[in-house]
Amino acid sequence: MYDLMIIGGGPAGMTAAVYAARKKLSTLLISQDLGGQPNVTAGIENYMGYQFIEGPELMEKFEKQVKQFPVDMKIGQGVSNLSQISQGFEVRIGGDETYEAKTAIVATGKRSRLLNVPGEEKLRGKGITYCAVCDGPLFGGMKVAVIGGGNSALEAAIDMVRIADHTYLISLTPLTGDPILIDKLEKANNLMKFLEHEVLEIEGENFVEGIRIRDLKTRQERELDVGGVFVEIGLIPNSEFVKGVVTLNHLGEIEVNCANETSVPGLFAAGDVTSVPEKQIVIAAGEGAKATLQAYSYLQRLSE
Amino acid sequence: MYDLMIIGGGPAGMTAAVYAARKKLSTLLISQDLGGQPNVTAGIENYMGYQFIEGPELMEKFEKQVKQFPVDMKIGQGVSNLSQISQGFEVRIGGDETYEAKTAIVATGKRSRLLNVPGEEKLRGKGITYCAVCDGPLFGGMKVAVIGGGNSALEAAIDMVRIADHTYLISLTPLTGDPILIDKLEKANNLMKFLEHEVLEIEGENFVEGIRIRDLKTRQERELDVGGVFVEIGLIPNSEFVKGVVTLNHLGEIEVNCANETSVPGLFAAGDVTSVPEKQIVIAAGEGAKATLQAYSYLQRLSE
Repeated sequence: MYDLMIIGGGPAGMTAAVYAARKKLSTLLISQDLGGQPNVTAGIENYMGYQFIEGPELMEKFEKQVKQFPVDMKIGQGVSNLSQISQGFEVRIGGDETYEAKTAIVATGKRSRLLNVPGEEKLRGKGITYCAVCDGPLFGGMKVAVIGGGNSALEAAIDMVRIADHTYLISLTPLTGDPILIDKLEKANNLMKFLEHEVLEIEGENFVEGIRIRDLKTRQERELDVGGVFVEIGLIPNSEFVKGVVTLNHLGEIEVNCANETSVPGLFAAGDVTSVPEKQIVIAAGEGAKATLQAYSYLQRLSE
Repeated sequence: MYDLMIIGGGPAGMTAAVYAARKKLSTLLISQDLGGQPNVTAGIENYMGYQFIEGPELMEKFEKQVKQFPVDMKIGQGVSNLSQISQGFEVRIGGDETYEAKTAIVATGKRSRLLNVPGEEKLRGKGITYCAVCDGPLFGGMKVAVIGGGNSALEAAIDMVRIADHTYLISLTPLTGDPILIDKLEKANNLMKFLEHEVLEIEGENFVEGIRIRDLKTRQERELDVGGVFVEIGLIPNSEFVKGVVTLNHLGEIEVNCANETSVPGLFAAGDVTSVPEKQIVIAAGEGAKATLQAYSYLQRLSE
């Protein structure tokens, strides 16, 4: 039985692991991969300490930092189930493989809702991005398309009209975000909206070159010449495996307080899978550190 | 009138500034110095992205990252007063100098309570540390002294008996921390306690070599041969200038929720000055990022 089990190997999970190792907790890290979302992030200018670094390069540094410590790892498979046992928690991987720990940190992140159109898989991280806050500034002076009609799409479009040469906003529905955000966009003279349009394809060989859309009413198709596509149609927390065990909010995020405690004592959560707002590497890393330090205090206070 | 005023130039404040600049907010950063507490931290092994880096070196990187953006700075003087005005906030520096902004982030950190004994000033960062979580692992195999009798001193001592060769725990009073922490220390066979002892002097030329203490009852003095001194006699939040404006907790920390909102709309807080637990660079940086993104959303929603 481990002291601590960390589920998830993105910035939050890896930071949690480094803090756990430095506290000499016996630790198991379980994750599909190491790196998570930053592995598909084009370039990062807002991780403090690096003026510019590619997502995968930064995650390699995180990984090396974890691997200098004796942290047990189980990489390549996700957790299918987590349950409470008398002395802590048990997780199940795949069929019959189980692991136990006195405390657990869930840091499984979110996944972007995909467009599921041709070209998307090939061009992820090559002009298609799922985080305008992260990647927006890299598209200065270009033509870009923002996909979506909710607040995150509107905020992305507001950002991009200031950064890009021209921005297309493409939404399946009328705009559903806050009126004040919609008002702001009205003032932009370098924005063109295509509402009730669907995306059919993202085009390009090695990098995004264009996007093909269709008017849902008239069925008219149109090609837009863009160098960047911002997909902002929502995020899905990877919290399915703890549903019923811990309190989730209406978005499916794990509810935590500022000390990363969930509704279950001994079970902590950190990073994008939680109710803490914003989706940023430095925020997730901070939350991971905080979660481990809280888990450590919890363990210290367990009677022996 | 600025969009955002950031008060404090440590990890939280500088990260807040980078995020503000990337959002193209007109921003003023006001601080005594750039770097804050990490400037007196010996070596850092738990800032993700760097396996080992000196505190001042990391803070230089943060500073360069801020300075690549057009952020106005006012360095060298602290804020003496912050008040609400009709459209936001006004701060006063020194006598008559005032600045205004629509939103503000307070990130002024904490300061360690000092021992105020001879040798302390000379040897800060040279064997004297005020953060056992940060610096403990650097003292492996050495003899060290932990000063204090509360939870943070006990937790430091629990860490150090596992890391150091021998640990002395020196407290002015009987131990006042949690009984379970005190119990844990009872089991250590490489710990010696000097309760109701005061520290008279920290000795050493270029690095800590020893500590001189005195029994409060018998007045007997004693020299202990140590290579490290962990001062854990408490931290003081630098929140005096917002007292009466914003809700503070019983420790004097600014109360924030997980979105870095204080009791005053438009006024945010981040890092060690807040009620968020733990005192770590990566946590403060994450909080600074979060605070700016929240301030940005707040500004977006302000009617124009």
